[in-house]
Amino acid sequence: MGLVVVKVGGSEGINYEAVAKDAAALWKSGQKLIIVHGGSSETNKIAEVLGHPAQFLTHPGGMTSRLTDRRTLEIFEMIYCGLVNKRIVELFQREGVNAVGLSGLDGRIFEGKRKDAVKYVENGKIKIHRGDFTGSVEKVNVALLQTLLDSGYLPVLTPPAVSYQGDAINTDGDTAAAMLATAFGAEALLLLSNIPGLLANFPDEASLIPEIPAARLNHPQYMAVAQGRMKKKVLGAVEAVQGGVGRVVFGDARLEEPIRRALAGGGTVVH
Amino acid sequence: MGLVVVKVGGSEGINYEAVAKDAAALWKSGQKLIIVHGGSSETNKIAEVLGHPAQFLTHPGGMTSRLTDRRTLEIFEMIYCGLVNKRIVELFQREGVNAVGLSGLDGRIFEGKRKDAVKYVENGKIKIHRGDFTGSVEKVNVALLQTLLDSGYLPVLTPPAVSYQGDAINTDGDTAAAMLATAFGAEALLLLSNIPGLLANFPDEASLIPEIPAARLNHPQYMAVAQGRMKKKVLGAVEAVQGGVGRVVFGDARLEEPIRRALAGGGTVVH
Repeated sequence: MGLVVVKVGGSEGINYEAVAKDAAALWKSGQKLIIVHGGSSETNKIAEVLGHPAQFLTHPGGMTSRLTDRRTLEIFEMIYCGLVNKRIVELFQREGVNAVGLSGLDGRIFEGKRKDAVKYVENGKIKIHRGDFTGSVEKVNVALLQTLLDSGYLPVLTPPAVSYQGDAINTDGDTAAAMLATAFGAEALLLLSNIPGLLANFPDEASLIPEIPAARLNHPQYMAVAQGRMKKKVLGAVEAVQGGVGRVVFGDARLEEPIRRALAGGGTVVH
Repeated sequence: MGLVVVKVGGSEGINYEAVAKDAAALWKSGQKLIIVHGGSSETNKIAEVLGHPAQFLTHPGGMTSRLTDRRTLEIFEMIYCGLVNKRIVELFQREGVNAVGLSGLDGRIFEGKRKDAVKYVENGKIKIHRGDFTGSVEKVNVALLQTLLDSGYLPVLTPPAVSYQGDAINTDGDTAAAMLATAFGAEALLLLSNIPGLLANFPDEASLIPEIPAARLNHPQYMAVAQGRMKKKVLGAVEAVQGGVGRVVFGDARLEEPIRRALAGGGTVVH
């Protein structure tokens, strides 16, 4: 059996207990797994209470990202690396699976370029925010993760990544998970969040798109899914499949057995 | 060269930059190191802001410990495993040393018994606090740490530990570091904090005790140091030396080159 990479989002409603229980059962049956998780909704809440509320920048291309000054980065690490990562590791330990929680900083697991000047749009004008701790993952430390897997440990990974200069950088979790799955030539990459998969008419859950054949993305039938808010997700999935990942599934992390459901094709399958 | 275990406390005034810089220089010269750190003062501050201020229990023997209910444990993890652990790992990455930050939960590095009922004294009466997430380390996962060291990674460790049932447990960092140093038969265990070493008349820094021969602890000259607030620290150090650790040094983490100073005998040396 090949490796399965499971990315669990950080939105409201994620059932971490169900994810850990399902992953533990699969792990015990011999399935190798790596978990990657988020933590955005809890970061937003704590940032508010700590008097440093989340700010999001809208980029010229229409994407948004978290403004990550030094204080935001610290709060981000408190929630992602502290609260959420250790919660998930503890859930695995209670299930008898020896998990190891690591950020991208640790062992340079996720490494990339820091982008400290970020362009954004305000009142129709393009501005630049400097001193940002963000960037995108370009390299994955496969050797360290393989050593852990070979020794029987289940890696539980989280942003931030590390820059080539050694700075912590906030990075997109889905992209990091896709880089990881590609680096391992994973059997599957599951992107689990608080919706059933990719929705043609968000947030109408009845408009679930069951499958997207990567090779036929330019076919009129699929053009719509590669637009707007889904564009980045779909193109990322297609890129992972073209890079050698067996399949990418967008699945639902609110339900019981979310991993087995996604592996069985529940959600949106990109193949 | 044997292994050196460096415990850096979590009190006000610790110079983490100096610790990381000094450790990085030693590491690059071939000295194997494991770092263990605390985070109590920042935990207290954030706990206050989050509306769940730290509470300390005084035990029948006179020792105090942090009351660790579930919410306190979460805040503890945010600071120890998130803020402080990743800050130290980032300092190492900037120095070009590939550090890996782990808690005792990860890979069951620090494992022990959970003590969910804690006796404490209030108004002269002995009471019991139930539902506490505390305990003491009884086992260290030497194999995982040795694998990391052999692969060129510098481990940066922090409480909590993990119970035999898989719960996260708040645990004393000094004791965990001593268990670790003993398990490795370390050349030295350095316990660095915001004072110059053990002080006969706390907080008079001129009353520094330069050395304590473990074998002569019962000699009248040394009896005083094994009393009161220093008792646990001294007995812990003596136990480590008797368990095979080369020497234990209580040193100052506010200064430049704090590790090299302690290795050169700066502070209180228990041998």
